[in-house]
Amino acid sequence: MTTVLIVYTTSLGNTRQLAKTIADGAHSVAGTDVQLKEAHEATKDDVRSCDALIVGSPMRHRTADSRIKKFIEDVCEQLWLTDEMVGKVGGVFTVGGGYGDCGAGCELAQLGLLGAMAAGGMILVTLPKTTPGFQVAGMHWGVHGRSGGTAMEPLGITDEMKLAAHHHGANIARVATELRGKDLLARGNVAPSQELIKQFSS
Amino acid sequence: MTTVLIVYTTSLGNTRQLAKTIADGAHSVAGTDVQLKEAHEATKDDVRSCDALIVGSPMRHRTADSRIKKFIEDVCEQLWLTDEMVGKVGGVFTVGGGYGDCGAGCELAQLGLLGAMAAGGMILVTLPKTTPGFQVAGMHWGVHGRSGGTAMEPLGITDEMKLAAHHHGANIARVATELRGKDLLARGNVAPSQELIKQFSS
Amino acid sequence: MTTVLIVYTTSLGNTRQLAKTIADGAHSVAGTDVQLKEAHEATKDDVRSCDALIVGSPMRHRTADSRIKKFIEDVCEQLWLTDEMVGKVGGVFTVGGGYGDCGAGCELAQLGLLGAMAAGGMILVTLPKTTPGFQVAGMHWGVHGRSGGTAMEPLGITDEMKLAAHHHGANIARVATELRGKDLLARGNVAPSQELIKQFSS
Amino acid sequence: MTTVLIVYTTSLGNTRQLAKTIADGAHSVAGTDVQLKEAHEATKDDVRSCDALIVGSPMRHRTADSRIKKFIEDVCEQLWLTDEMVGKVGGVFTVGGGYGDCGAGCELAQLGLLGAMAAGGMILVTLPKTTPGFQVAGMHWGVHGRSGGTAMEPLGITDEMKLAAHHHGANIARVATELRGKDLLARGNVAPSQELIKQFSS
Repeated sequence: MTTVLIVYTTSLGNTRQLAKTIADGAHSVAGTDVQLKEAHEATKDDVRSCDALIVGSPMRHRTADSRIKKFIEDVCEQLWLTDEMVGKVGGVFTVGGGYGDCGAGCELAQLGLLGAMAAGGMILVTLPKTTPGFQVAGMHWGVHGRSGGTAMEPLGITDEMKLAAHHHGANIARVATELRGKDLLARGNVAPSQELIKQFSS
Repeated sequence: MTTVLIVYTTSLGNTRQLAKTIADGAHSVAGTDVQLKEAHEATKDDVRSCDALIVGSPMRHRTADSRIKKFIEDVCEQLWLTDEMVGKVGGVFTVGGGYGDCGAGCELAQLGLLGAMAAGGMILVTLPKTTPGFQVAGMHWGVHGRSGGTAMEPLGITDEMKLAAHHHGANIARVATELRGKDLLARGNVAPSQELIKQFSS
Repeated sequence: MTTVLIVYTTSLGNTRQLAKTIADGAHSVAGTDVQLKEAHEATKDDVRSCDALIVGSPMRHRTADSRIKKFIEDVCEQLWLTDEMVGKVGGVFTVGGGYGDCGAGCELAQLGLLGAMAAGGMILVTLPKTTPGFQVAGMHWGVHGRSGGTAMEPLGITDEMKLAAHHHGANIARVATELRGKDLLARGNVAPSQELIKQFSS
Repeated sequence: MTTVLIVYTTSLGNTRQLAKTIADGAHSVAGTDVQLKEAHEATKDDVRSCDALIVGSPMRHRTADSRIKKFIEDVCEQLWLTDEMVGKVGGVFTVGGGYGDCGAGCELAQLGLLGAMAAGGMILVTLPKTTPGFQVAGMHWGVHGRSGGTAMEPLGITDEMKLAAHHHGANIARVATELRGKDLLARGNVAPSQELIKQFSS
């Protein structure tokens, strides 16, 4: 079985909706087991045992929610220390309003999440424009569900956004299935001791 | 007189329209002289003699147009070497289609332009949400004119986008007027010789 | 009096050292009052009453510390809603180790902080290469104190880093003094009601 | 055979050195054919026929060289239009001096290159800290060869940098070999016609 772990946080439920749809998409790929966890529930063992990690966040003032950031520090950063993220597959999604009509910072927010994955040595699945639903949820780095219009009128999570999310989940599950259990990335580095790294953090 | 220099490039004319509107906005501030130049026309002397530099570009595959990049290398990077950008005021704008409904990379494109200004030690004027027209042209880093819809139907440059652009130009002109001729940023660094910097470029 | 507010968080004390040095630099500018607060202490009134805001963070897995992010959400995002950040002056700094020898993500970390300021409509002071100490603490967006070497050997906060930090603080205080009390940025936008914005967050 | 295409540009030869080392690393993986091209030589057919694309650039004022940007516009953007990049594997590298001691913008430069790949729907290979040589050439997004020190003293491309580059090339070749010829990413989207996209560019 390929294991896909989706970690998210939500305030009003929009990000949860998109997370569930991504989970359904991943689950639609044969041989895939899906775990869906809120940020505060996800443990190091959850991440250790996944083949793919998908992280989603509401936009909070142009970057990811601090609850997601806490998960990255408490879980991902610890597994980075011990090189336990290397070679896993990753992807991201965000949710936010449409005021400004140009993403309102979703690119930097997604890059903050992807940067945590890149630090871990993960392989990143982006979002092709061939994805159904791309027209309305297509940040190229990952799905962005724009839950409001330019006058902040509510759009919620529409069927077209869900279409993109479903396929993003399925894409990631398929790539993880191909790469699972293969140890493709060089591991020969004599890194500084973990004690040293911890000691001189800032 | 405060001098505001606007440098842009354009393919179909949309970015030129926005550049002209920004020029009008800057010109509306008393005591402001405005220079409007295409990227290939703008010289080191143009930039040397400006108090504020505004750079605008069409989106070309998620970053600024290579013609703008050439201007940055041939003009701005040279004046960075000789510390002639320090303390000038800067701002940016971009134009691009709406496919994906979330900016299509305009944030990273604007940050690439702002990074060239930050390297020069410039003071950056962002775009407040109090700006008229912000709803449809409000990337917080600068104006983004979204010239197409989610199905790529043409929107062109609308009056609301022009409103935001006009005020962005005026905002920058006002800040430049306040800061003009004041030497506010420390200049005590004994930098490496220019010959050295040039010699070991990559 | 010009008021400069410095908000930071720290784990082992390195970021606090740099914050104090920035405070000293700001204080060296005549007529400047300086407030130094840890992230959890800083209130909306602290930010409301400042002319310049300087935010600093340790690097935590390639972006700012979640305690800083919490401050941005609880304080800055709320004052963004009510347009109370517009026209203030801003700057940033980070601290992190040297493993990798190329910043380890300090650029994206600083941009996340600056993005919160840009969203608020703030005017951003970058770090010119003319700044004393730039050679060893010169991220162009703001000061970066690299507290460890490539093998993670401890460097701590050196005198040269403090030199850059001192001048960054003074630079920002001088710009804030020039712009204080002037209402230079357009405020004519009829924004969506705050209730509407809150209602459709994600 | 798996085909790995490396596209670069160079001024003084440092980026070429790193490109050649990456080529050697890719070639060390059995069954891999490697193409090494300068940006102006690389054609649409070169990119069409590769399984993995690796793009490298000298830093030019905080983003990639305009010659690389021209390649992205003339080749990659055209193949994005026709969805011919989807599912290919990608990676990046940069070269630049050490003035400032924190990357001097190599993160945003690498993200500009990766953004062009993400737009194309490519799968991105990052750089784990387990990579030999990571200590001195380890930007997590890709290899960064820091060719100068903090006082701009020449470092050139050292053996340790080459070690990281070699393994980056090999890593990417191995991932490309696993994913080659598999069509893992959804292709169901009815995109706007290419004529429409071209017509309303900016």
